[in-house]
Amino acid sequence: MWTLSEIAKHIDGVVHGDEQYEVTSIGTLQNSHSKQLSFLSNKKYKRYLADTGAGAVIVSNDMASFVVSNAIVVDDPYVAYAKAASFLNPRPEKLSGIHSSASVADDSSIHPTASIGAQVVIGSGVIIAENVVIGPGCVILDKVTVGESTRLIANITLCEAVKVGKRVIIHPGVVIGADGFGIANDKGKWINVPQIGSVQIGDDVDIGANTTIDRGAIDDTIIGDGVKLDNQIQVGHNTTIGTNTVIAGCVGIAGSTTIGKNCIIGGGAGLGGHLELVDGVMLTGMTMVTKSIKQAGSYSSGIPAEETHHWHKNVIRYRQMDKLTERVKQLEEFTQK
Amino acid sequence: MWTLSEIAKHIDGVVHGDEQYEVTSIGTLQNSHSKQLSFLSNKKYKRYLADTGAGAVIVSNDMASFVVSNAIVVDDPYVAYAKAASFLNPRPEKLSGIHSSASVADDSSIHPTASIGAQVVIGSGVIIAENVVIGPGCVILDKVTVGESTRLIANITLCEAVKVGKRVIIHPGVVIGADGFGIANDKGKWINVPQIGSVQIGDDVDIGANTTIDRGAIDDTIIGDGVKLDNQIQVGHNTTIGTNTVIAGCVGIAGSTTIGKNCIIGGGAGLGGHLELVDGVMLTGMTMVTKSIKQAGSYSSGIPAEETHHWHKNVIRYRQMDKLTERVKQLEEFTQK
Amino acid sequence: MWTLSEIAKHIDGVVHGDEQYEVTSIGTLQNSHSKQLSFLSNKKYKRYLADTGAGAVIVSNDMASFVVSNAIVVDDPYVAYAKAASFLNPRPEKLSGIHSSASVADDSSIHPTASIGAQVVIGSGVIIAENVVIGPGCVILDKVTVGESTRLIANITLCEAVKVGKRVIIHPGVVIGADGFGIANDKGKWINVPQIGSVQIGDDVDIGANTTIDRGAIDDTIIGDGVKLDNQIQVGHNTTIGTNTVIAGCVGIAGSTTIGKNCIIGGGAGLGGHLELVDGVMLTGMTMVTKSIKQAGSYSSGIPAEETHHWHKNVIRYRQMDKLTERVKQLEEFTQK
Repeated sequence: MWTLSEIAKHIDGVVHGDEQYEVTSIGTLQNSHSKQLSFLSNKKYKRYLADTGAGAVIVSNDMASFVVSNAIVVDDPYVAYAKAASFLNPRPEKLSGIHSSASVADDSSIHPTASIGAQVVIGSGVIIAENVVIGPGCVILDKVTVGESTRLIANITLCEAVKVGKRVIIHPGVVIGADGFGIANDKGKWINVPQIGSVQIGDDVDIGANTTIDRGAIDDTIIGDGVKLDNQIQVGHNTTIGTNTVIAGCVGIAGSTTIGKNCIIGGGAGLGGHLELVDGVMLTGMTMVTKSIKQAGSYSSGIPAEETHHWHKNVIRYRQMDKLTERVKQLEEFTQK
Repeated sequence: MWTLSEIAKHIDGVVHGDEQYEVTSIGTLQNSHSKQLSFLSNKKYKRYLADTGAGAVIVSNDMASFVVSNAIVVDDPYVAYAKAASFLNPRPEKLSGIHSSASVADDSSIHPTASIGAQVVIGSGVIIAENVVIGPGCVILDKVTVGESTRLIANITLCEAVKVGKRVIIHPGVVIGADGFGIANDKGKWINVPQIGSVQIGDDVDIGANTTIDRGAIDDTIIGDGVKLDNQIQVGHNTTIGTNTVIAGCVGIAGSTTIGKNCIIGGGAGLGGHLELVDGVMLTGMTMVTKSIKQAGSYSSGIPAEETHHWHKNVIRYRQMDKLTERVKQLEEFTQK
Repeated sequence: MWTLSEIAKHIDGVVHGDEQYEVTSIGTLQNSHSKQLSFLSNKKYKRYLADTGAGAVIVSNDMASFVVSNAIVVDDPYVAYAKAASFLNPRPEKLSGIHSSASVADDSSIHPTASIGAQVVIGSGVIIAENVVIGPGCVILDKVTVGESTRLIANITLCEAVKVGKRVIIHPGVVIGADGFGIANDKGKWINVPQIGSVQIGDDVDIGANTTIDRGAIDDTIIGDGVKLDNQIQVGHNTTIGTNTVIAGCVGIAGSTTIGKNCIIGGGAGLGGHLELVDGVMLTGMTMVTKSIKQAGSYSSGIPAEETHHWHKNVIRYRQMDKLTERVKQLEEFTQK
């Protein structure tokens, strides 16, 4: 139970109404009860303000007069909600120590404040820093290092010599440091190119469930500080992702591509290999990138859904576009006679 | 070994031929031997009827006269084959009880008929109902509930407080309840929005290998009864999938999208966030959905493959389409003079 | 530490310079020091030859004169680099035997030279051949067979009765033999079609992280010898992939499709079900295949990224293409009057 005054202090806001009013949890405008704190960040939902059951609402200044219960007025309601939600939902403390069912190599170095979960495997030469949580079922292969306060939720694989920074969150099913896809054609037979680089994950990175980040062929694959990766992303070997770049789910990035800082990449986009995207590039969902992008800005491709029978027709027209252009050219020649 | 009479009874069919004929297994028309039961559901394969080695064939009434061995005549041969295959291939019984290598929290509640496999981890406050099978290597985090007769094959992760219904089948590598991709930009730095909702999986749901279903930001992500999900699907936070909807592999669904009942979504489709698809929508493979779909029916996008040199030309023409339209406009003006 | 002479012998090359010169590792032209061996395979990087710190460089004959340090001249520098890198980075030997934390069924057959890692689960009737490495956290379900010298890195699931060949490398998170996506609509309710086939993986196959290969409905799914699969590929049930075919990341292949030998499939491509691709087909990245391909050659689809405001315009024009074609037709009729 928290008073609005405590919460306002935490999120740098000002209470309009009863400062001593108490709430217990966060809710949406539509589904809250009187002991809940809600928020309005997208003005599309303004209409819910009048009827919300929430005992208090985080809003921007211009919305404060529409709140019928208590308000906490802030500059950025979405950021304030994020902070309030963290404040009201502290992560449960993990017990430090090594679970009896974990299998830990004798020559690994586990900080006494770290928590090593059930059925975990820790290889030789691994270094786990303070306050790290390695959740159940994770496999940490030899020579990996994990920086302080990083949390691996469960069933994650870190391959040999991967380096993970501080305050990183890694979700289940992630694989970091599997071999990059390097093959050479030796007279008709594919042979593997040994992948002798590794992966460096910066600080404050998030990595979503079942995302894969391959190790470098010679040099390392590099994920910059503050990068946020959603689920099921594939990062090829020797890719570099710049600081604070955000990538949505199901994106595939082929090898040796460099993505700048502060980029935002929509879900399902595909990036070819050996490309360079400068800082500040935005890609909408399912965009296909086959060339380097040298100027910041928003880029797109793909044709949105239409009814299947129209789609059939348009696909046929598309295939005849060359011919159509030719017909227009002939008309132009005719009219210029 | 089963007689055709027994099988016919089970699949609601009528034997034409020897009711006491015995078969041991199911086979395709092309590869069966005389102790096998086959089926014809797609009439494209009618030509295999004459030469099949199968001792009996499940067919619809109009095909019965083409069967040279024994026939079992049914209304829907594909459904009947599915039922016959289940009948001839009963799931092996799992021993109930907890494997000695599993790690189970003292305050979890495991029904005595449930089977908990090797190297499994079960967290605090977990409730496992009767006849549940938790296969080897699964990690079930705190406060999860799993309904009766649900089966988790192996190496699956259920995150905190996820609720799974009855008779659900979950394939290896699935992750349910990882944090949704919620971030807020706090003066140039991305901060995480705590994901305090959970996931509700209905009854009779199937979830394919390495599919991921994120927990909700505030309210829950909801998968309706009878939903069938193939492999490597990504379901974003606060998505709702309606009853009996079927989704093929590699589909990505961004957050807060609502999919109706009885939809069929083709492989590799991508759905943007905050959309609504009504009941009975069908999407062909790789369709890109950027707007809500308000009418039932079939929708498509994407241009199928062509030879690369044609593709190059068409892409160039596509980029000049604006100019081409302008040229046509000028011609029209000219001819109207 | 290896002499150039030793290395040249191994990679079938000729030393130009000091045969007794010693190197310790492989590096890129840009980042090498004097004790490193580098290579030039892509002539785009020729400009780095003059300034490289590498003590020796693998090159083709026509490049030898541009090397300022020592050279090893070979026919194919990329293949030679792959072989040299293998030679200089031998895989660490795994201790044979079964880790004390592994859970192994009594009636499985594990060759004494095999290595079974920590927290592994091996089911009933499993056969593991000589020199196989089953890394930590893997789950091998009943009746699986694994051929000699195959290596499973970690956290992999092989489902019942899957057959894996010799010298196969399987990366973490891979799932082989989960149920194919087979459902039948029984009066409005989807029922499962039992997937009673299995999966056969040939010899010398590589399978990338989090790739999934489903078991067949009746007959087996088949991956030919020498096939190389990257990460996060989905292979549907009863798919057949021919010898030496290479598939990049994030490709989805629907069920019952047959891919020929020596195909090269770019990342993110999608293949519909029940198709046939002949030998020697190449697909560029993100290509959408909806029909069989009957001639070898390169195929493509998809429109590459453009600035979002252009994209908007082109999408609108695309939707009007039918109308545009009509307008051109009318102009043609007019001019022919």
